Amino acid sequence: MKLPRRRFLHLAAGAAALPAYIVPYLQRAAAQSAPTGMLEVPARMLPVPDTVSPQMQALIARPVNPRHSLSPQTAAEWTRIVEDAARAVVAGLPKLRETLGVTVEPTTIAGVKAFIVTPKLILESNRERVLLHLHGGTRVFNPGESGTREAILMAGFTGYKVISVDYRMPPDFPFPAALDDSVAVYRELLKTTKPENIGIFGASAGGSLTLTTLLRAKMENLPMPGAIAPGTPTVDLTKTGDSLFTNAFVDNVVGTQDGFIRATAFLYANGRDLKDPLLSPIYGDVRGFPPAILTSGTRDLYLSNTVRMHRKLRAAGVEAVLQVWEGQSHLHYMADVTAPETKEYHDEVARFFDRHLGKAKAE
Amino acid sequence: MKLPRRRFLHLAAGAAALPAYIVPYLQRAAAQSAPTGMLEVPARMLPVPDTVSPQMQALIARPVNPRHSLSPQTAAEWTRIVEDAARAVVAGLPKLRETLGVTVEPTTIAGVKAFIVTPKLILESNRERVLLHLHGGTRVFNPGESGTREAILMAGFTGYKVISVDYRMPPDFPFPAALDDSVAVYRELLKTTKPENIGIFGASAGGSLTLTTLLRAKMENLPMPGAIAPGTPTVDLTKTGDSLFTNAFVDNVVGTQDGFIRATAFLYANGRDLKDPLLSPIYGDVRGFPPAILTSGTRDLYLSNTVRMHRKLRAAGVEAVLQVWEGQSHLHYMADVTAPETKEYHDEVARFFDRHLGKAKAE
Repeated sequence: MKLPRRRFLHLAAGAAALPAYIVPYLQRAAAQSAPTGMLEVPARMLPVPDTVSPQMQALIARPVNPRHSLSPQTAAEWTRIVEDAARAVVAGLPKLRETLGVTVEPTTIAGVKAFIVTPKLILESNRERVLLHLHGGTRVFNPGESGTREAILMAGFTGYKVISVDYRMPPDFPFPAALDDSVAVYRELLKTTKPENIGIFGASAGGSLTLTTLLRAKMENLPMPGAIAPGTPTVDLTKTGDSLFTNAFVDNVVGTQDGFIRATAFLYANGRDLKDPLLSPIYGDVRGFPPAILTSGTRDLYLSNTVRMHRKLRAAGVEAVLQVWEGQSHLHYMADVTAPETKEYHDEVARFFDRHLGKAKAE
Repeated sequence: MKLPRRRFLHLAAGAAALPAYIVPYLQRAAAQSAPTGMLEVPARMLPVPDTVSPQMQALIARPVNPRHSLSPQTAAEWTRIVEDAARAVVAGLPKLRETLGVTVEPTTIAGVKAFIVTPKLILESNRERVLLHLHGGTRVFNPGESGTREAILMAGFTGYKVISVDYRMPPDFPFPAALDDSVAVYRELLKTTKPENIGIFGASAGGSLTLTTLLRAKMENLPMPGAIAPGTPTVDLTKTGDSLFTNAFVDNVVGTQDGFIRATAFLYANGRDLKDPLLSPIYGDVRGFPPAILTSGTRDLYLSNTVRMHRKLRAAGVEAVLQVWEGQSHLHYMADVTAPETKEYHDEVARFFDRHLGKAKAE
């Protein structure tokens, strides 16, 4: 469909009501031909919403993360970027653990490195339950201890014991290493814990890995866990999803799917078709999946991929609920431990797991 | 919050040629936010997503509705705009009723004009249940029969009997006429139907009116209905809500909150503070509200107001679920009766009412 030329002329003519900066843009656009069906959106200034907490306002007011333009060319460059980021995360963990009263112990499960993340108080109703955590980080970040941050938040806010998988990652270990490790730990966990007492959660790449772990579990005839909580899951490694366009450079955490993020997708896929369901679970068969709580934000680059997965789960008859947070970019819902939104997010997930995981008395 | 004028002047000055304008702007804007905390987002071209139905693609490919720039100055101009729009809607209703097997009868309830909208088949489980419909239309559109379109869709897709309120509107009848009429019909309905057997739904202004009707019902000590379904509710008449900025001119149905929509808000409010909870229910006390299903789209100008209301309901302990549709602008989820998304939307709402309204056997 072609944009009708007269539309823009009409707007320009009635421009008294429009901000001054839009007018020349529209006049100019009228003289140009637009690609079929595309919508031209003018540049805009986005104020920080004043209806969110001060902590969230501070996060939203940050400039776009410059990392989106990095393009590492060698394994050594990848490793340096990853290690720099990990150091920064790890530096904040002692205080986070202390604030939330959480202890973290390294372990090995089925030959895979992992961490046992234990809250100070485990509720009686949660004694037989455990959460399996698959960390986020664009499939390359958060190795070792740095991957436990999300697990510390979950254990601290919800009172669940968490097992956080330190799965192998590129550049040394591309697909399917992360998936192999996640499934191996889940399989081992099933030997001691009823599947209905296991919840699996993760954010971003970890949310996608949560879903691909279930796809692989189905393929291997493992039982489904009791519930899952994929947060803003990057369920499609191709540039598909409307918010990848609408929220480009609106999301200040990731900026754009192009550049660095695209490079991580190819690094992880290692030559495999990006639409393989074990890479991009939006293309998988999700029938029989357990109840799921999905989370995103209105500025999230992955808003579309979150809602696409939500709709896909619903269409497959899965009990799936959606939370979308005002003004938040990718992962803002747990970026600041002091933000009330962070507590509210974890309270929602805790209630969801409480409702859907097996009861202790069913032991 | 005031927009910093000098930035717009700067943008306009650099706008002599489109490429020359965008390139330096991209360089400047992509990784920066203004000192005020504002984020500068470059102009962009949005392709139509190919993961939605062909019918939805056609809706998304439409140019921005030029109505946003209208600025009627007299009651006669308002009336002409409203009547022109109503004629276009009414012209399509006979075919819609026939397609969905729905009959519509005008009536009067508690002195208020209304329509009884009846599906061909009312399920046995729904015989004691009824849905009260408060139509949308920016608080000025869809008078008389034109207001029944949403009710016809709901009755046809869900098998519920619907009572559609033809509430009075500006310019002749500003606030609180619409609210008075809605509450009057609800009060009358309570004389013959148990509150738990009543669902209330509406879209856009009708979604907001659904919520303000509940606020007034609480004030008048009326019982709450069994469940509600506010679709992309315009719960805040002030320019508050992040997507009013992020999705301006991304939403091709309404375009912008400025201009025409702003004019309708003031016309309806008639001098009253726009933050009055009975005008903008996001500022009301929603404790004790019944289960709610809220709906929006990723391009919806009112995405933020939908998710803000969802979070507010959740924070108040209300069972509230959220549906967000990929790529959709305001009300796209029911814009084309043949789109599979339209059926899926109504199926979700039907299941929600089925689950939460009182059972016939409880009679």
